[in-house]
Amino acid sequence: MSDEQTDTHLVIFTPSGKRGRVASGTPVLQAARQLGVDLDSVCGGRGICSKCQVSPGVGSFPKHGVTVAADALSPFNKVEARYDEKRGLAPGRRLGCQAQIQGDVVIDVPPESQVHRQVVRKRAEARDIVLDPATRMLFVEVAEPDMHRPEGDFERLAAALAAQWQIEQVSVGLPVLARLQATLRAGKWQVTVALQRRTDGWKVVEIWPGYHETRICGLAVDIGSTTIAAHLCDLSTGEVLASQGLMNPQIRFGEDLMSRVSYAQLNPGGAGEMTHAVREALDKLIGALAEEAGVAREDIFEGVFVGNPVMHHLFLGIDPVELGWAPFALATSGPQRVPASELGLHMHPEARAAILPCIAGHVGADAAAVALSEAPEAQEELTLIIDVGTNAEIFLGNRDKVLACSSPTGPAFEGAQVSSGQRAAPGAIERVRIDPETRRAKVRVIGCELWSDEPGFAEAVGAGGVTGICGSGIIEALAEMRLAGVMDKRGIIGSAEVLGDVVFAEGRTWSYRLHVSGERVIAVTQNDVQQILFAKAALYAGARLLMDQLGVDHVERVVLAGAFGAHISPLHAMVLGMIPDCPLEKVSSAGNAAGTGARIALLNLSERRRIAEVVRKVEKVETAVEPRFQEHFVDAMRVPHENAPYPNLAAHAVLPDIRFETAGGGEDGGRRRRRRG
Amino acid sequence: MSDEQTDTHLVIFTPSGKRGRVASGTPVLQAARQLGVDLDSVCGGRGICSKCQVSPGVGSFPKHGVTVAADALSPFNKVEARYDEKRGLAPGRRLGCQAQIQGDVVIDVPPESQVHRQVVRKRAEARDIVLDPATRMLFVEVAEPDMHRPEGDFERLAAALAAQWQIEQVSVGLPVLARLQATLRAGKWQVTVALQRRTDGWKVVEIWPGYHETRICGLAVDIGSTTIAAHLCDLSTGEVLASQGLMNPQIRFGEDLMSRVSYAQLNPGGAGEMTHAVREALDKLIGALAEEAGVAREDIFEGVFVGNPVMHHLFLGIDPVELGWAPFALATSGPQRVPASELGLHMHPEARAAILPCIAGHVGADAAAVALSEAPEAQEELTLIIDVGTNAEIFLGNRDKVLACSSPTGPAFEGAQVSSGQRAAPGAIERVRIDPETRRAKVRVIGCELWSDEPGFAEAVGAGGVTGICGSGIIEALAEMRLAGVMDKRGIIGSAEVLGDVVFAEGRTWSYRLHVSGERVIAVTQNDVQQILFAKAALYAGARLLMDQLGVDHVERVVLAGAFGAHISPLHAMVLGMIPDCPLEKVSSAGNAAGTGARIALLNLSERRRIAEVVRKVEKVETAVEPRFQEHFVDAMRVPHENAPYPNLAAHAVLPDIRFETAGGGEDGGRRRRRRG
Repeated sequence: MSDEQTDTHLVIFTPSGKRGRVASGTPVLQAARQLGVDLDSVCGGRGICSKCQVSPGVGSFPKHGVTVAADALSPFNKVEARYDEKRGLAPGRRLGCQAQIQGDVVIDVPPESQVHRQVVRKRAEARDIVLDPATRMLFVEVAEPDMHRPEGDFERLAAALAAQWQIEQVSVGLPVLARLQATLRAGKWQVTVALQRRTDGWKVVEIWPGYHETRICGLAVDIGSTTIAAHLCDLSTGEVLASQGLMNPQIRFGEDLMSRVSYAQLNPGGAGEMTHAVREALDKLIGALAEEAGVAREDIFEGVFVGNPVMHHLFLGIDPVELGWAPFALATSGPQRVPASELGLHMHPEARAAILPCIAGHVGADAAAVALSEAPEAQEELTLIIDVGTNAEIFLGNRDKVLACSSPTGPAFEGAQVSSGQRAAPGAIERVRIDPETRRAKVRVIGCELWSDEPGFAEAVGAGGVTGICGSGIIEALAEMRLAGVMDKRGIIGSAEVLGDVVFAEGRTWSYRLHVSGERVIAVTQNDVQQILFAKAALYAGARLLMDQLGVDHVERVVLAGAFGAHISPLHAMVLGMIPDCPLEKVSSAGNAAGTGARIALLNLSERRRIAEVVRKVEKVETAVEPRFQEHFVDAMRVPHENAPYPNLAAHAVLPDIRFETAGGGEDGGRRRRRRG
Repeated sequence: MSDEQTDTHLVIFTPSGKRGRVASGTPVLQAARQLGVDLDSVCGGRGICSKCQVSPGVGSFPKHGVTVAADALSPFNKVEARYDEKRGLAPGRRLGCQAQIQGDVVIDVPPESQVHRQVVRKRAEARDIVLDPATRMLFVEVAEPDMHRPEGDFERLAAALAAQWQIEQVSVGLPVLARLQATLRAGKWQVTVALQRRTDGWKVVEIWPGYHETRICGLAVDIGSTTIAAHLCDLSTGEVLASQGLMNPQIRFGEDLMSRVSYAQLNPGGAGEMTHAVREALDKLIGALAEEAGVAREDIFEGVFVGNPVMHHLFLGIDPVELGWAPFALATSGPQRVPASELGLHMHPEARAAILPCIAGHVGADAAAVALSEAPEAQEELTLIIDVGTNAEIFLGNRDKVLACSSPTGPAFEGAQVSSGQRAAPGAIERVRIDPETRRAKVRVIGCELWSDEPGFAEAVGAGGVTGICGSGIIEALAEMRLAGVMDKRGIIGSAEVLGDVVFAEGRTWSYRLHVSGERVIAVTQNDVQQILFAKAALYAGARLLMDQLGVDHVERVVLAGAFGAHISPLHAMVLGMIPDCPLEKVSSAGNAAGTGARIALLNLSERRRIAEVVRKVEKVETAVEPRFQEHFVDAMRVPHENAPYPNLAAHAVLPDIRFETAGGGEDGGRRRRRRG
């Protein structure tokens, strides 16, 4: 026992808290491996890669019951000195593969030295992303050939990967095989390989002589009906190197999904045209992202793509015609992973493009990405997640069960079909307040911190001026109009006789003046209200349908996602009746959750696999054929609702009990129309 | 019990002998499945494919203790009648899926109705090939889409394959996915699919609406240094549909292997040129085979390729430079399977090209194919297997252990480097007999049954006449020359003074006149003898080296393979000393064993996988660096050998104890030269 006490030392790793005794002289990297501590190394402990940096502590650590002597680790050795000279080692840092344990010690593993390091997400409630990408780089020493044991060079490389990295079932393609022998000899039997996980093991997809450092990158792409948004990420760090977006060029074939499906139905070869258009745009986008990040296309080894079912099918080259009519049959609902080259995308020759699973004929891979980002299946509270786009994808559930549907909101929330509507961009009104006394509005625009009634507003906004109103602005505008008594429960805007000059006549209806600058008048017309009510009623009806299905009459939490959802005011959304009643502090915005989900799937292959299982278990509800959806829709054309109780809202706001005359004297038109897309 | 007796019937299947009781009314196909009898069905019992034909017996079967009543099976039904009318059902045949068991019955499953039917090989000692190819066709009924259970069409196809055919882990590529929905609907939810086994499960590689019959084909190709030989096979029956061969166009870069390796070493891009040449030739050959068989290139789903290591590397696009010097490192020794399109071969778009494993730097995939055909690892007797080509691959072993080496015989056995040498083709001398009294030769040529001293020989041979001598002819010639005292133990041809006018002077040596027709003299020169002795000594030395390694001084069985080996005379081979002494009746010819091995690997995927394991365990001996090889070589330059005993040969032939003068009066030149390739 006393021998053990002297020949072994206690080592405690932080932040994991893992501890154990190791033999005197054990390198820190080896100790970490013995104790199951996540300490990175690309070169396998040869003092080349410097990925295994640690920060040893010195002095007393009462918490751990240890006092660390100054000589608890071996002194700085030649390898560390050379590394420090050439590339610089931060004060207090040691190379884990060089420093040997000579006494009891506490060793901190900084985040960047962890293999499965976490990529921190900004929102407090969001889980961090654990790095575990499908492609990784490893340095390996390969045995030299022996004519009496004539295994091939590749078989010896595979054996080395198994022995040095516990990587089994390794395959190789012809391009690497053709360069293998020359590379092994150029690197003097030391090479760096890029390995890509496949369903049948690992594939060596790239090889460099000696120790080689390069960025290996991946793409996360959200193919929206209107815009395509892409992030280029460093697969070793999770860092976003570049982000860009562009309009989906398929718009020239049809504004919304159904018009694109119709285009495919009516024009032979139409689906192929749209497939070509989106792939070509994506390929250009990849080039632009690579240029922005200063990497080569060949450094991109993986792409994860999400999109609604029509985008999903067109991207994969599948005619979406079956998605245009019941039973809305998907060609495939499962996850797919294919060579990127088969999609016309120029990345590394062995790069793979993965597309997340679709959930149902109207609930696509983008919704799967939202589920991956927001994890409805992991919630304690009954959570309603709404991803707002041209179609809204809606999840309702918690640990016990998750339901999903999609609802055809139309593009009104994205600024289309609204007279002064525009996409969220500098100059767009995003906040609105209406004085209940004067019924006059003040606004704030994107790119400017001042309200329009504050001094210097015009100068701060700049030469472009106030250009229009974006989705979150129009929601606030309508909610404020309702709160200020400018608009009644049915959405009817009052006349000048009642409201004075804040409204003006347009044909037989009234419009509310939101902002005037010079000649330009930004107003909310009666038709604008109608369009927004269509959209919000569809949202609400979808949510209610899921609540019916689950047999609940309220939800405990609401998450609003979508580019739009990042800026929404919970109070105003509730006044408008976009969402069911719920404690206000339990309403949050998740930003571009689909894009985040794509990024998680890119950076963590297990999560990518897991979400396919999760969405398979999601209970799907098809709104298009559900009669109750129509009833809920009609009742939701009121502001906030025909009859649903809003007790939480009532605690924060009083909605005036007013009723204006309609132009025709009859009911509003909202009960007449329905469309999908 | 009596209920069971009346409600169930005894059914006995032949030839398997499997028996059991099944419920009355059970279709024969279902009974076969219950009892584990191998009865084919592509349509899954729908009366479409007719693959499940059986021959029921009637009357008394004392051997089985059963008497079969005339009504033991249900009467011919409509489906059978329709099939009989349209396509004809042989007398006594029934469709197994339609005929129901109504009494005790004996049912014969004809060979063509077995899934794993056996492809009979001609040689008595060869094992039959059990059909189990990597690609198969199946008919399947797919559930229609249901919007409330929104799995994709592909996922429902996969579920149907699992339920109806127990096929799990099914994937699909983009081309089939793009056609999937239209095909399912065109076939009214019945489709025929071609499924290909991959390392990660099965892939749907082709789809047709409804029940579809087509040949699915595969290629077995032996890429020799000199010739490429290919068979096109029907993967469902194992039938060889077409066979063709062509010269390897790489010959223009070098006659033998080493000169091609040198070409690659000396000319930048030289390896690429040779890769291109062989792939282009193969692609043309595939086109020619498809045309001969009347199938489309797209009907070919799989190719198995074998060849020596240099051919293997060049075919895969790997520079063979490392094979030119010790340690003769292979780029890969394991089996590879890649898309045929990556090799420039135009077959089905999803077709795979498999190349068998290499055994060592000089023992290639062709040797693996020989091992697959001849199964040294399964032999009771200690067996020597020699595959004769430009290089000879040699196996020695039995159940306990197998050794392998290659030996550089050179192209003499293929007719090169021999004055009148030619490839085995009509007009070539293939048999030789020399009268020991007159020392005159009679010959037989390929394509003619008569000996040259029989009446009508000249007419029977035809206008082309006797054109030269092929490998088996030259072996017989030399052995007969030795037996008739024309040539001594050292290979020296006697002078005219001793032998008379059967020899004539050429420079300072003598040539033996084998055949004269008009102006044309076909003779064996002293140099011809030298070339053949180099070749046979290399063969023998390789075999002896393996015997040394195994610690044995004789073998129990010899198998001669190679296109050449098909025609060889065991007695003459032994007189010449090509092979060690062995009972004559234990020497057999295996024909083109490499080609046969390729065909086995094509038709049976388990065998293809198994041989990779077998060759991994083979003990490799590298002749190029083994000093004893040189010693054995020199001793084997005698006819039959300097000092090895030939007791079995002595029982069949007496070799005259003579010794002629050499031209220079000294030793022969055989001890001076060695070359590889």
